[in-house]
Amino acid sequence: MTEQTSATPGAVQSGFLSDFAEMSRFGATERGGVHREAASAADHQTRAWFASWLADNSFQVVEDEIGNQFGMIELVPGAPYLLIGSHLDSQPMAGRFDGAYGVLAAAHAARTVKQRVDRGEVVPQVNLAVVNWFNEEGSRFAPSMMGSSVFTGKMTLEEALATTDRAGTTVAEALAEAISEPQRGEAPTPGLYAEIHIEQGRLLENSGHSIGLVHRTWAASKYQIVVHGEQGHTGATVMADRKDALFGAALLIVAARELAEEFPEGQLHTSVSELSLEPNSPVTLAREVIMNLDLRSPDESVLARANEILEDRVSEIERRARVTVERNRTHQWGLLPYQPEGVELARAAATELGLSHTEIMTVAGHDSTNMKDLVPTVMLFIPSIEGVSHNELENSSDEDSLAGVQMLSEVVARLVRGDISAA
Amino acid sequence: MTEQTSATPGAVQSGFLSDFAEMSRFGATERGGVHREAASAADHQTRAWFASWLADNSFQVVEDEIGNQFGMIELVPGAPYLLIGSHLDSQPMAGRFDGAYGVLAAAHAARTVKQRVDRGEVVPQVNLAVVNWFNEEGSRFAPSMMGSSVFTGKMTLEEALATTDRAGTTVAEALAEAISEPQRGEAPTPGLYAEIHIEQGRLLENSGHSIGLVHRTWAASKYQIVVHGEQGHTGATVMADRKDALFGAALLIVAARELAEEFPEGQLHTSVSELSLEPNSPVTLAREVIMNLDLRSPDESVLARANEILEDRVSEIERRARVTVERNRTHQWGLLPYQPEGVELARAAATELGLSHTEIMTVAGHDSTNMKDLVPTVMLFIPSIEGVSHNELENSSDEDSLAGVQMLSEVVARLVRGDISAA
Repeated sequence: MTEQTSATPGAVQSGFLSDFAEMSRFGATERGGVHREAASAADHQTRAWFASWLADNSFQVVEDEIGNQFGMIELVPGAPYLLIGSHLDSQPMAGRFDGAYGVLAAAHAARTVKQRVDRGEVVPQVNLAVVNWFNEEGSRFAPSMMGSSVFTGKMTLEEALATTDRAGTTVAEALAEAISEPQRGEAPTPGLYAEIHIEQGRLLENSGHSIGLVHRTWAASKYQIVVHGEQGHTGATVMADRKDALFGAALLIVAARELAEEFPEGQLHTSVSELSLEPNSPVTLAREVIMNLDLRSPDESVLARANEILEDRVSEIERRARVTVERNRTHQWGLLPYQPEGVELARAAATELGLSHTEIMTVAGHDSTNMKDLVPTVMLFIPSIEGVSHNELENSSDEDSLAGVQMLSEVVARLVRGDISAA
Repeated sequence: MTEQTSATPGAVQSGFLSDFAEMSRFGATERGGVHREAASAADHQTRAWFASWLADNSFQVVEDEIGNQFGMIELVPGAPYLLIGSHLDSQPMAGRFDGAYGVLAAAHAARTVKQRVDRGEVVPQVNLAVVNWFNEEGSRFAPSMMGSSVFTGKMTLEEALATTDRAGTTVAEALAEAISEPQRGEAPTPGLYAEIHIEQGRLLENSGHSIGLVHRTWAASKYQIVVHGEQGHTGATVMADRKDALFGAALLIVAARELAEEFPEGQLHTSVSELSLEPNSPVTLAREVIMNLDLRSPDESVLARANEILEDRVSEIERRARVTVERNRTHQWGLLPYQPEGVELARAAATELGLSHTEIMTVAGHDSTNMKDLVPTVMLFIPSIEGVSHNELENSSDEDSLAGVQMLSEVVARLVRGDISAA
């Protein structure tokens, strides 16, 4: 697809694809992905490039204490800001779209809408700021969505800055490794929020739609699981005497998968991740295994039933492996709605642009999940080829990528002109 | 039991239990065990204490380049040495007997036999050296049995010294952290070997014997397993699309346990240990899991059948989890015999002392497993309470501990006087 260079309403931004290719060089992996964990060298390179892009395009660049980067355009002195953005950090060996696409799309959309304001086509009611939220992924520094959690008051700045990675480096120390001194300043006061992200499933691809209008999140139960056993010699300990925490953990991992298989495809997603053994020695049975276990569903009654079955399975596993299983519920939420007026605004924008669209739920959390609790929020998806996510091979077509920028630009124009009142 | 203090033949050594209690303070854990990984601070403390004990008791103390400590007593200038010992290092959070008991028992036995030689009760044909083999456990620096492997020429010194732990510290660097400069010197030339160790099962306890005469090792197949999957989002990835390496690994861990359950108790021991994920992130399905899988049996035909069944299971697991399983065989051996003349010598000694005894196989490897390939070797076990091993609660009664020292002393006397010809 040839990119349009006209600046007419709804036209595709000049140079989006080339900018995206340039940005995707930072932390690039062999198979076309990026490896850009929060505040790593590759993340700092990306952040520096992005700050330069913003400055070159007449945004006022400001960074807050937790490393959220803002590119501000003042249109109505004293009015609240429409924030638009996502995150530039990635999981290890992950895709180049997840997060980064949304940040660059926001920057291009903001530039387009500013031009429309300057031409008098859009009469602004709010100011405009692009944002790169720090550490959305949480792979290096847990928890995820750190920058937007601090911004929305869900986590204290002090706690976030003191968080350490596996090597003991704090967020504060890692942020201080920035390539150039950040331009500190007052963060914009939020009144509205919009974000666009690549889908992390294949619903849009399967249904043939260009744009997903996110109207709610899946329900989720997340646990930290600690399996308690007893250390023993891997070879000499009589099988019947073993209280092998790793065997208990394995039974639970298999049970989690079988739990998902008890429901129709798409009704329950289960997973186990981030597993560690104590001790982790070649000739010792582990006394303790710690891991995450997540259950997610688009149906709250399915999730409740899955939790019940899981409880039964845990009891069976405790008996069979002679271990005890401690379940600490770390997250529990139902179907969380995005503001309906945001969905309606996005639907109107897509209709005007002639982009095929459908309502969709998000399985994963996003910075918009935090922001929607603070201000009216619009969340959009573009299609992902084969639904590949958190993987180097994640991809979206050029056509879909550009349609997404066009869509976001139109949504931003409507929000700037006041179609939804700022909080 | 009151310790005897006489130095008559076969009498129990003076102060063994108090010395053992003193030595067990280094790296002591709350529940009565020790945490003393190779060349850790606690290991260095133990080594320094042991070198002092040897020097105080007129042994010539020498350390070789890989950190094996020798306490030498020259009885017959120019003759080869009878080496007796075990290892002072431990697994993480492990028992105070595993290894350390055998080193201190050897020191006390050597002192007793020296006194008998001095009194003319034993006419020596060989010299005598106590040894603390470096890094038998291999939990910090793999592989296990490092010191005795270098000593017996099974591993090069260079390779051993360059081995790193998880933090990147080399063996050479860790050894250099010794409390005092080691006394370098020529290691003794081996002609015979003897070792006593706590049993790592409960056969002696169950049969009510005080001493085990180790006559062979179990057969074993050990694998490094690499499960290859594809990264994905833990929540959003459609279940049917997942190639979750951790799910594949869990199926294999469960299959290994079920494999053991297909044979009568005691015929097959299986285990999985030392597992790592790549990446190990809270919201990403692992693309790769690496782990150890061991199969051990006292019957070579059982082991062969178990390997066949495992192969079938692996194919099923590959299909079910949509992963590939790479199996790298790291060890493969049959029933390895200890020298029969060593077993007979030990049987005669136990009979003379009136200690109940039985032939026994060892499931685990020991430094004697290396030494028996070089020189005639006697390997002895004392009972373990409930067979607890690689665990803080590992224990043996005072009575059994002292009987073991008495037994080893008699075996050493018979080896020193030449009942078996030195290699």
